[in-house]
Amino acid sequence: MAQAMANGKISGGGEFTTSCHDFLKSKYGFNNCLLTNSCTAALEMAAILIDINPGDEVIMPSYTFVSTANAFVLRGAKIVFADSNPRHPNIDVETLEELITPKTKAIVAVHYAGNACNMETLLALANKHNLYIIEDAAQAIDGYYTFTDGTRKPLGSIGHLAAFSFHDTKNIISGEGGLLVINDEKFIERAEIIWEKGTDRSKFIRGETASYGWVDIGSSFLPSELTAAFLLAQLEQIEKIQNKRLSIWNHYNNLFANSNFETPNIPTYSSNNAQMYYIVLDSIQQRINIIEHCKKNHINTAFHYLTLHKSHYYNTQHDGRELPICTRFANGLLRLPLYYDLGLEEVEYIVKTIVELV
Amino acid sequence: MAQAMANGKISGGGEFTTSCHDFLKSKYGFNNCLLTNSCTAALEMAAILIDINPGDEVIMPSYTFVSTANAFVLRGAKIVFADSNPRHPNIDVETLEELITPKTKAIVAVHYAGNACNMETLLALANKHNLYIIEDAAQAIDGYYTFTDGTRKPLGSIGHLAAFSFHDTKNIISGEGGLLVINDEKFIERAEIIWEKGTDRSKFIRGETASYGWVDIGSSFLPSELTAAFLLAQLEQIEKIQNKRLSIWNHYNNLFANSNFETPNIPTYSSNNAQMYYIVLDSIQQRINIIEHCKKNHINTAFHYLTLHKSHYYNTQHDGRELPICTRFANGLLRLPLYYDLGLEEVEYIVKTIVELV
Repeated sequence: MAQAMANGKISGGGEFTTSCHDFLKSKYGFNNCLLTNSCTAALEMAAILIDINPGDEVIMPSYTFVSTANAFVLRGAKIVFADSNPRHPNIDVETLEELITPKTKAIVAVHYAGNACNMETLLALANKHNLYIIEDAAQAIDGYYTFTDGTRKPLGSIGHLAAFSFHDTKNIISGEGGLLVINDEKFIERAEIIWEKGTDRSKFIRGETASYGWVDIGSSFLPSELTAAFLLAQLEQIEKIQNKRLSIWNHYNNLFANSNFETPNIPTYSSNNAQMYYIVLDSIQQRINIIEHCKKNHINTAFHYLTLHKSHYYNTQHDGRELPICTRFANGLLRLPLYYDLGLEEVEYIVKTIVELV
Repeated sequence: MAQAMANGKISGGGEFTTSCHDFLKSKYGFNNCLLTNSCTAALEMAAILIDINPGDEVIMPSYTFVSTANAFVLRGAKIVFADSNPRHPNIDVETLEELITPKTKAIVAVHYAGNACNMETLLALANKHNLYIIEDAAQAIDGYYTFTDGTRKPLGSIGHLAAFSFHDTKNIISGEGGLLVINDEKFIERAEIIWEKGTDRSKFIRGETASYGWVDIGSSFLPSELTAAFLLAQLEQIEKIQNKRLSIWNHYNNLFANSNFETPNIPTYSSNNAQMYYIVLDSIQQRINIIEHCKKNHINTAFHYLTLHKSHYYNTQHDGRELPICTRFANGLLRLPLYYDLGLEEVEYIVKTIVELV
């Protein structure tokens, strides 16, 4: 960051931004990518790129963060919420075909806790119905999907577009921050324009035009060089960070193995990027009891998403379908502490504290 | 920034963000304010807050940055471009009444180069026709407007809403960054929700609700604590920064006083915040000659906005009115170097280099 300041240019799109892009493209095989101010911003860019217009429908899980939906609602989309997989909060791909209409434009695959959605089924659906697949990879940095033929691809490199988050709560952070990945070639030029406030400034900077002007809608999606410099330092440590997080995750999982708690069920096609360790409880009341008990013992645990189809904002627009599985996760899922500096003895203390209550 | 990291929380909305808000409210008498990722983001929040819907009309100068228009276009507005004042790039308030229709919802007052628009006339128009005044105060930090009764108010504190920029090129910077000012009380609660991705998370953090959920449209408008910490350090030096910039500006203006160049004409009701020093040339060719001559002498000068009504994106949507004065500024205005570290001898060298060419 000191170097960014010494460069005399801390606005966006400088050398640290380029270094982050290069690192991510090289490590994960992204066709192209652009740092953004947030994962929310990357999703908004995706909604603009696939040209969402009022009335277009977008299918996504109800068990996700508000930004997954908001980004498309801002462009006028109708959100069609799908239920979760019985064994995992990710979208239940078996339920999707009946939700597709002639107005459906995209399916958003949210890789919950960094675990891959069933991408082959999603790609087949997209192919059959001419839809876009947008990966909401907010939690999925360094996650992988293994195809049935054995091919292994990084999450975010599979859909037409993908969005990552570098928010504080993620594996790799820059406070606030995100990334748009552009895998479909046809979006690359326009993405650069939308990123630069709807102007062809990127071309101007490369000397391809004498001045730059307003050519499209867009926003100021690019983060500062200060943010990019912080992010680059994190990316350079990614293996160390991931190894440490995995050791914490595995310790939790081993310690819970002999308990009766429902622990994360990672699909066979998905890697584990150790984004989150959670248990799923039988009821809201059981969860409240555990949260209270943990709090007394100085442990911060947290539930996660409320279902979006029942939200104050969208419940009257939802078509009334019950989505019982995502409701189960909304009521029962409890996230346990998982951060780089967490010691393995602390993990033991946390598990002991929870198990002793039952 | 080291302190922000030591706090263990570098995502948005923490203590440095609050300190920036407190500083700005206290110094400039803003009713409320929220840091944003950019001035663009603040303008987008304003467009959401005044509930722009497809077909609504927004009046603004054609001589402005694309974001002034884009923020409203993203919500479906039709932009009605106005010409500049004959003696200043700011909007010509004399031409506005005939542009107002029953669909007009707002006038955007862009304080070009930090110089105040004629706010009294704008407020009277807004009052008469029930419109909102949005101040695009991107360049206007520490600028003031003096009312005819002698009252002096900071720019950004006068309209219903206002947007500031802390981009690299501004007086006070955080690389990328902005601020939404909310003067009209009725927007305060909703602004906080829109800022937090359409959720009532701010209430949750204050303990006013047990969980937070999706209650409105919104985005991730808040910058990280790293950005806020950088900004706070700048704000704490604002008097020193402003004094230095003013001395540079005044030196330019004194040195050009005996030349034939058209220099900035600051309206009597406006202070000078030394955001920019510019001269206005008679033709594009004269400007090209000066830019080239300066470049040979290692001086970076720059023209500024292209007119938005003739832009590739909007020219077919513009109603065809000629806007000759903003075209004159688009073709003739030349910005000279003005930054904190610029020495007065360098100013002398720049002026000499330009004057000798004629």
